[in-house]
Amino acid sequence: MLHVDRYFSPIPAVRDIARELYQLAAAYPLVCPHGHVDPKLLALDERFPDPATLIVIPDHYVVRMLYSQGVPMEALGIPRVDAGPTQSDPRRIWQLFGDHFHLFRGTPSGAWLSQEFEGVFGISEPLTAASAMRIYEQIEACLARPEFRPRALFERFRIEALCTTDAATDSLEWHRHIRQSGWTGAVRPTFRPDLAINLRHPNWGAEIARLGAQTGQDIASYARYIQALEQRRHFFKQMGATATDHAAETPFTAELSSAEAETVFQRALAGRATPDDVRLFTGHMLMEMARMSVDDGLVMQLHPGSDRNHNQQVFERFGPDRGCDIPLATEYTRNLKPLLNKYGNDPQLTLVIFTLDETTYSRELAPLAGHYPALRLGPPWWFHDSIEGMARFRCQVTETAGIYNTAGFNDDTRAFASIPARHDVARRVDANFLADQVSRHIISLDEAREMIRALTYELVKKTYRLA
Amino acid sequence: MLHVDRYFSPIPAVRDIARELYQLAAAYPLVCPHGHVDPKLLALDERFPDPATLIVIPDHYVVRMLYSQGVPMEALGIPRVDAGPTQSDPRRIWQLFGDHFHLFRGTPSGAWLSQEFEGVFGISEPLTAASAMRIYEQIEACLARPEFRPRALFERFRIEALCTTDAATDSLEWHRHIRQSGWTGAVRPTFRPDLAINLRHPNWGAEIARLGAQTGQDIASYARYIQALEQRRHFFKQMGATATDHAAETPFTAELSSAEAETVFQRALAGRATPDDVRLFTGHMLMEMARMSVDDGLVMQLHPGSDRNHNQQVFERFGPDRGCDIPLATEYTRNLKPLLNKYGNDPQLTLVIFTLDETTYSRELAPLAGHYPALRLGPPWWFHDSIEGMARFRCQVTETAGIYNTAGFNDDTRAFASIPARHDVARRVDANFLADQVSRHIISLDEAREMIRALTYELVKKTYRLA
Amino acid sequence: MLHVDRYFSPIPAVRDIARELYQLAAAYPLVCPHGHVDPKLLALDERFPDPATLIVIPDHYVVRMLYSQGVPMEALGIPRVDAGPTQSDPRRIWQLFGDHFHLFRGTPSGAWLSQEFEGVFGISEPLTAASAMRIYEQIEACLARPEFRPRALFERFRIEALCTTDAATDSLEWHRHIRQSGWTGAVRPTFRPDLAINLRHPNWGAEIARLGAQTGQDIASYARYIQALEQRRHFFKQMGATATDHAAETPFTAELSSAEAETVFQRALAGRATPDDVRLFTGHMLMEMARMSVDDGLVMQLHPGSDRNHNQQVFERFGPDRGCDIPLATEYTRNLKPLLNKYGNDPQLTLVIFTLDETTYSRELAPLAGHYPALRLGPPWWFHDSIEGMARFRCQVTETAGIYNTAGFNDDTRAFASIPARHDVARRVDANFLADQVSRHIISLDEAREMIRALTYELVKKTYRLA
Repeated sequence: MLHVDRYFSPIPAVRDIARELYQLAAAYPLVCPHGHVDPKLLALDERFPDPATLIVIPDHYVVRMLYSQGVPMEALGIPRVDAGPTQSDPRRIWQLFGDHFHLFRGTPSGAWLSQEFEGVFGISEPLTAASAMRIYEQIEACLARPEFRPRALFERFRIEALCTTDAATDSLEWHRHIRQSGWTGAVRPTFRPDLAINLRHPNWGAEIARLGAQTGQDIASYARYIQALEQRRHFFKQMGATATDHAAETPFTAELSSAEAETVFQRALAGRATPDDVRLFTGHMLMEMARMSVDDGLVMQLHPGSDRNHNQQVFERFGPDRGCDIPLATEYTRNLKPLLNKYGNDPQLTLVIFTLDETTYSRELAPLAGHYPALRLGPPWWFHDSIEGMARFRCQVTETAGIYNTAGFNDDTRAFASIPARHDVARRVDANFLADQVSRHIISLDEAREMIRALTYELVKKTYRLA
Repeated sequence: MLHVDRYFSPIPAVRDIARELYQLAAAYPLVCPHGHVDPKLLALDERFPDPATLIVIPDHYVVRMLYSQGVPMEALGIPRVDAGPTQSDPRRIWQLFGDHFHLFRGTPSGAWLSQEFEGVFGISEPLTAASAMRIYEQIEACLARPEFRPRALFERFRIEALCTTDAATDSLEWHRHIRQSGWTGAVRPTFRPDLAINLRHPNWGAEIARLGAQTGQDIASYARYIQALEQRRHFFKQMGATATDHAAETPFTAELSSAEAETVFQRALAGRATPDDVRLFTGHMLMEMARMSVDDGLVMQLHPGSDRNHNQQVFERFGPDRGCDIPLATEYTRNLKPLLNKYGNDPQLTLVIFTLDETTYSRELAPLAGHYPALRLGPPWWFHDSIEGMARFRCQVTETAGIYNTAGFNDDTRAFASIPARHDVARRVDANFLADQVSRHIISLDEAREMIRALTYELVKKTYRLA
Repeated sequence: MLHVDRYFSPIPAVRDIARELYQLAAAYPLVCPHGHVDPKLLALDERFPDPATLIVIPDHYVVRMLYSQGVPMEALGIPRVDAGPTQSDPRRIWQLFGDHFHLFRGTPSGAWLSQEFEGVFGISEPLTAASAMRIYEQIEACLARPEFRPRALFERFRIEALCTTDAATDSLEWHRHIRQSGWTGAVRPTFRPDLAINLRHPNWGAEIARLGAQTGQDIASYARYIQALEQRRHFFKQMGATATDHAAETPFTAELSSAEAETVFQRALAGRATPDDVRLFTGHMLMEMARMSVDDGLVMQLHPGSDRNHNQQVFERFGPDRGCDIPLATEYTRNLKPLLNKYGNDPQLTLVIFTLDETTYSRELAPLAGHYPALRLGPPWWFHDSIEGMARFRCQVTETAGIYNTAGFNDDTRAFASIPARHDVARRVDANFLADQVSRHIISLDEAREMIRALTYELVKKTYRLA
């Protein structure tokens, strides 16, 4: 069902070049520097659960689309916070998914899932209400076989490196387990200290306590807090991490003096942090993280601009990550100025910036990345990790920043079986972008051949220091 | 003059598919759920006035473009607020229009007018300075014939339903007239209570008095005000309305307590509403309108983000709707949060959102519509109801929200004779959008055939509950 | 190396029309109403310096891209503020440039430079690390020849008019020199009083003193200040100026009373202007400049929205214009309202607006320009003066404002030898834009022929009153 020229231009002259460039890209293994696969999966290497539990329930892209058309979360088997009843029959969930699969026409989820069904599970018919149960059984039969266990798929997918995302206080036990198992798959942790930094989070105090327990010191002062974070970064690095990751509602950065930081920190410990404290401390800690990255060489990633859990009812009933996060207009020029002025001229730092606000591509991010040595632009994120979204990114970024200030592709997914599909879509879009440029005589075919290698493999390895 | 493949891609593979899909679309009657046609036109069914009075003077798209190039409003016969002299010879106005028709090259007005001239009036030459008078006479001759009366055109245009826009206190007498006339054309009112809600408007007090007169009660309290609005909605619904419509400078929503609302309302009655009162009351009333829609099933439309009457001189001399309304950057994620949190999970509500700020398509509106069951996205509005504007909308919305969270097409016009042209352009753009997706193997041709039916006919009927 | 069809669509039907339209465009001489060429160049008509000093060091587009990839400014020979050592061997600078030329793939600098190398200097191989020295010597050999002197190139480039940018207090001695030399090349000054208006600038006081010296009066009052500016405008006009130019962080406009203006002015003279004074005075002076333009007929240009010298380290070490200016989100609808309400209806005024925020094209600028008689939209500016950037501009502006409310092309460059390349790229993009519209039957080929003439030659001459 999957057409060999899918996602390429229908203009024959472009399509033919795209096909050639795509072949160069397709030869490379997958480098996955940012994602949300649970390392436990690869540590235990058990068979995957049923198709609904594997593919429908945890995928917030899928869940939100069905929910938007009136399908209740309960009917999709989404676990309730109060542990109340939800649909527990995976076949009924899958049937509901099949009944509504037309909703995904023209969406990246549609593209990824179709490619996953055919490419990973060998399905040869479209998912519809009528075919749903046949396809369910076929996937179920696959999943029962040893060659569909996580490590086998990791190898079949040709994953060269897979980075997970882990809290600052994560023990990294599953990472240790993988390393000690003798299996050679390169699975690396990423240091994501959001909870330890976000003074507003109800569990911040508990996280600080955990941080203290893990680092063997009572985190009673800002200075100790900083030491503890440095210590954890060191541990992550020892465990193979090459990067950190940070979320924040805005990319606001600002430096506090040690005394100011201490004052805010003490107010937070006492449970009396103000909204202004929260904002200033986050802005300050982004600068501290840049400072530490200059020291320890961990690549810094920043993912700002999502209004998390916009739908309070869904959040209270089903918890986070159910497709209820909505982007916000985001400002980078002024917000990043303090950080870039202090650390942005230092090539020791690599800061990879992501955005959910496409208006910033040509207005702010490409001009910033086309100037500051430390800055690289991450690939189109989340809603924009799509055929048109990636095309817009290249079209709006390249003229100002070139391709060499971009960071290659991230699949950014927890859906392990979808990884090859996501990379394949990105490679096709990049090949098509370059083919279009060749066909308009903006670049030569020889240049395009070098550029597709950079976009597919070289830039991601260099940016994330995975060489 | 009109090319059979107009507005389709010049790529043969895409054009051929677009042509086929367009044929499917063209077979459907026109459903017009939102517009500004005067119901009196269809009630009285008198002959239209001369070509200039029909086509030039009332069309703010046309007037603003000529004005931007130095043509005085007076020379176009725009009536003055002070009833002072303006050009009264329709032939001279039309000649001026012909002299400047080149200004509309590459604009939707150019496309609509050309199609209206040829499709409705059988004109077979382009409008220029030289042809202006010939074309005037030909249109004039048409308008004198009975088959160019409003009801005859309504039937010739194959309009299945036409919704007008009416103030909350409108008597709907012309709607009643149509219903009682025995003519079967489906003309429906839409409840638009902007004047009754906008405390800042100089005529708000008079509108409240009218509201009291019509509902037989003295609107001396907020509670009575709410009851009166509910009563009017009930009346509109009885008269065939299926929807309400709301304008506001921003989509800000916020709920006041009854006591707060009463306090603000009393200040407004006393003529002492503050700017903050105005803003809060509008935000509160949007939520009240959503609440009422959950109760009575009227579809709620919201059109925010226009800075009306930006040009004070023109407003004072010629009044509103002369092409002087300019869009504003608009924020939806935070502004709609209170309303969506309270009513957005309820499929009883359908809330159709419009925007003049295209940056919100991919950043805010598609993510919101791809999650909240109550939300649907209206078609590209006003300046963006154009060939490229509609293409951008589909391209930026579909990947996140799919097509099934969009609301089909609105012509949104007071220019009755332009209705078929507007729908035709939209159908062509949608057919071309889908053809491009088929040619890139993103969707199959069978899927595209189903989707063009949805975009042309099914979604608009379902969204506006016109089935 | 340069393909005859470069930058045209790869669709044969479009490409063939584009080629025809481009031929019409290519026949016209170059009109350069806004740029930064130093008039001294054409006054003295000396040979250009070496290739690195001509092409690399002064080009902030080139410098920022190399800097973004870790090349130190010193290695590029950028002069230091402290006059400290930097690379002084132009061959080593050029080699470094060649080593990194791949960074410009897909960028307008890449397109301009390739075209300049081949078109101006006859280079027939791509710039690479290997070819760098050969190309250097070839350019060096050209520059030594009399036909590569500035005036000879001016004539060879077929420049019909070249406007420079000059401070309000510039003596215009080099302009006088050109006029008195007998050479007939049309070089005109442009009045740019930013320094005399920006109360925040450390050199504002000195500029006021110069203004006083030049106009023979002590600028001790706001009234005298206004008179002095009017006097300078008169002088510029006598020297051939047809336009003024203004930069500001935002397009905020607001009118102060004479008393308020006087108060602010006195505070500024006393060195005690507040940030609010700075902002209000700039907004007020933009309105004053519009008033003066109504009086003296000088076309007013406004270039807002750049956060200048974002990188403090680079600014302190190397001064301004090193590629460290970053765009800001910019609001026009409300900010320009006072100015447009007062002067925008007056066709005596021509106000040309530029933007670095592409989101304003369809949302604010096209609606404003499609209404106010005084307003015209300048071409895509700076980062957006690029193949895709110009295509986006046409695509997002034309449907609302048409082409006749746009101002033709500006090269906006200080890189004299790149002028033909910049115009050529713009002409190709416009030809391709129109060809695409013809191929989709939006406009006819005859209309496109008229439109390409307007876009290339007529609009710029009319807008800038250069007829």
